[in-house]
Amino acid sequence: MTMSSVLPMVVSRQELEQRDQDDPLRGLREAFDMPPDLLYMDGNSLGVLPHRARQRAQEVISDEWGLKLIDSWVENDWLQAPARVGDKIGALIGAKVGEVLVADSTSVNLFKMLAAALQANTGRHVILSESGNFPTDLYIMQGLSAFAGDKVCQQIVEPDQVIEHLSDQVAVLLLTQVHYKTGQIRDMKEITRLAHEAGVLVVWDLSHSTGSIPVNVNDCEVDFAVGCGYKFLNGGPGAPAYLFVAERHQNSGWPILSGWLGHRDPFGFSDQYSPAADINRFQCGTPSVIAIAILECGVDLFTSTDMVALRDKAIALSSVFIGLMDARCMQFGIKLVSSRNAADRGGHVSFSHPNGYGIMQAAKQRGVIGDFRAPDIMRFGITPLYQRFQDIFDVVDIIHEVMTMGEWDKQEYNVQPAWS
Amino acid sequence: MTMSSVLPMVVSRQELEQRDQDDPLRGLREAFDMPPDLLYMDGNSLGVLPHRARQRAQEVISDEWGLKLIDSWVENDWLQAPARVGDKIGALIGAKVGEVLVADSTSVNLFKMLAAALQANTGRHVILSESGNFPTDLYIMQGLSAFAGDKVCQQIVEPDQVIEHLSDQVAVLLLTQVHYKTGQIRDMKEITRLAHEAGVLVVWDLSHSTGSIPVNVNDCEVDFAVGCGYKFLNGGPGAPAYLFVAERHQNSGWPILSGWLGHRDPFGFSDQYSPAADINRFQCGTPSVIAIAILECGVDLFTSTDMVALRDKAIALSSVFIGLMDARCMQFGIKLVSSRNAADRGGHVSFSHPNGYGIMQAAKQRGVIGDFRAPDIMRFGITPLYQRFQDIFDVVDIIHEVMTMGEWDKQEYNVQPAWS
Repeated sequence: MTMSSVLPMVVSRQELEQRDQDDPLRGLREAFDMPPDLLYMDGNSLGVLPHRARQRAQEVISDEWGLKLIDSWVENDWLQAPARVGDKIGALIGAKVGEVLVADSTSVNLFKMLAAALQANTGRHVILSESGNFPTDLYIMQGLSAFAGDKVCQQIVEPDQVIEHLSDQVAVLLLTQVHYKTGQIRDMKEITRLAHEAGVLVVWDLSHSTGSIPVNVNDCEVDFAVGCGYKFLNGGPGAPAYLFVAERHQNSGWPILSGWLGHRDPFGFSDQYSPAADINRFQCGTPSVIAIAILECGVDLFTSTDMVALRDKAIALSSVFIGLMDARCMQFGIKLVSSRNAADRGGHVSFSHPNGYGIMQAAKQRGVIGDFRAPDIMRFGITPLYQRFQDIFDVVDIIHEVMTMGEWDKQEYNVQPAWS
Repeated sequence: MTMSSVLPMVVSRQELEQRDQDDPLRGLREAFDMPPDLLYMDGNSLGVLPHRARQRAQEVISDEWGLKLIDSWVENDWLQAPARVGDKIGALIGAKVGEVLVADSTSVNLFKMLAAALQANTGRHVILSESGNFPTDLYIMQGLSAFAGDKVCQQIVEPDQVIEHLSDQVAVLLLTQVHYKTGQIRDMKEITRLAHEAGVLVVWDLSHSTGSIPVNVNDCEVDFAVGCGYKFLNGGPGAPAYLFVAERHQNSGWPILSGWLGHRDPFGFSDQYSPAADINRFQCGTPSVIAIAILECGVDLFTSTDMVALRDKAIALSSVFIGLMDARCMQFGIKLVSSRNAADRGGHVSFSHPNGYGIMQAAKQRGVIGDFRAPDIMRFGITPLYQRFQDIFDVVDIIHEVMTMGEWDKQEYNVQPAWS
């Protein structure tokens, strides 16, 4: 991993074009539909469409559903899809075969993992998390706690106070590895170690990690994790999510969402629940077959490369981005929010400006798609699978133009839905 | 609704072809991909593919995701899809606008509804259900109860003892309107009335009802309901499910699965959960956009007809089926399990035979797709949207042939996954 700070850097478009020519990963871009005339820097809210997904959707719909109907549950392996695609994602995050499952949404999986952690750590009742965590993480914790009453308490502390709050009341620590606003990377290994030292289990949200930075859940001794399929995995809008349960925790109690596909013998149609002995107990209802097949196409694109190569390119892209922004846009009061240290920065780069919303709207009219996060964050996704160095130059050029022309001032402030 | 018992009936294929000619609903079949050489009688496990679904999937994938990317959340109304398609399903079950939402799986929605009912009926702790209910209903109740400890008890009684167990300890009664094995219809209105009289709220599983029989949740004063999208609604394998919450219950406490899209202001990114004031509070994570769009195509096919016309045809189809089976297959020991009274029978007809598994396998080799449910149930889905009277004749003819030739005896018993 390149560990470099970034200094202002004026580099020409020509130099960056050359860098694209020399990029060993440049062929990967060809696997995607790149919308024409768009500089898409929103890769971590909704990744672009892999060509293969279009074709695969037709196969599943027309041939598997249309022609084979229920026989496809066996003949086309629909039944195995959650574990099969789970294992492919598992390979990206250092999980063993049988530790990852594709299922439901990130929110629903968070709920399952928190309940499983509470059951695996009996006698303790507190779920600890940090302010500014991605909202759904906090909300799911709050809903579980509100329902469970005295059995489960939630506690939210400032990010820098998490460690000191690892008391003997805390059953589970819920954190996100890469922060959705700033891109800041938490030290998953060290925090997990400290949590374990205090007898606390961890649930990590890897939504902004998987497919973006090298992750090794088992090297970090992570207990439980979740993540989403529609960001860096390019699984499509609202793609199914995944969950990780370390093998050692797969037999702790009943899953709280004890649906029929988590049963030891789902087709025995017994009146009595009895959980599967493996990761499948964390399935709940019937899996969303078509959506999982589409997600699989995104996940498969990672097999022709590796996370270290992708991470190196991502760091190079983001370093060029920060360098150019420093050199050309700092004068307008745009400030870097993400860390200047590449090792601390995940797959996006955020800046702030009091007129951030207007700037992003004006940039959008010139073809740059990024995210705005209230109150003043401009977030840009770095996706080495399909981004080029020359795109980075063009994005900065457009922002520079927007600032020079004062175009941000003409934008009506009208916040649109934003997909973390 | 035709209220007729069925007597043995020998009717010719020619007569039934004429009936197809005269069928005012016959045009509906043209909206579906009918797999060639298949007599598909499994409509209630996985409905067949509407042509439109294939095309719509391409639009959502290629144009909306591929070209418009995140802008589609607003421009292509992705954000509204759960409520929009929910309302269309609501129109099929007598719900008001704003009372039905498409979300998650049936199992996950059952969990939400049980928790909501418990919260709306404070001071009572028992969830009551019946043996032989569809397994996931019982399992979800068991998982919730196991997690909640003393707060929630589950009780399963024999179907004919449900009413007498409506004690002042019971918070919620969980029943399925149309039984997945026998097709028996429960009297939703009367049972709901008796439950309310005892201070008990009801959660009805409409998985085998919606799109199959006329349902009116508000006329029956139903409190909560769930149902699945992949059976009679033809929404595709593992299609998203739906939930119904009567308006009067939409503000009782927090949803237990309090994900970010159920928040009053999901894009405010607050640390504190605050539920939406309406049905949207029962959303949890990001909706499965592509899968919902596909489901919508199935649901839309109901708008060109009405449930009463469909039900009349379904009763006619099933009456012909039972009449022919009586006349031609009773001699082989095949017995009707479903009610002989059409008004008590939902959208499938079940028979039993000790060699039921072998019979269904042999029939399958001759192109008849039905379901087998252990230990001896042969289940046939009646789907008036696309079934013809002549198909019924052919199915009975094949079963007759299988029995006459003793083909069922040559089938290895090897139970395959079965999708209720």
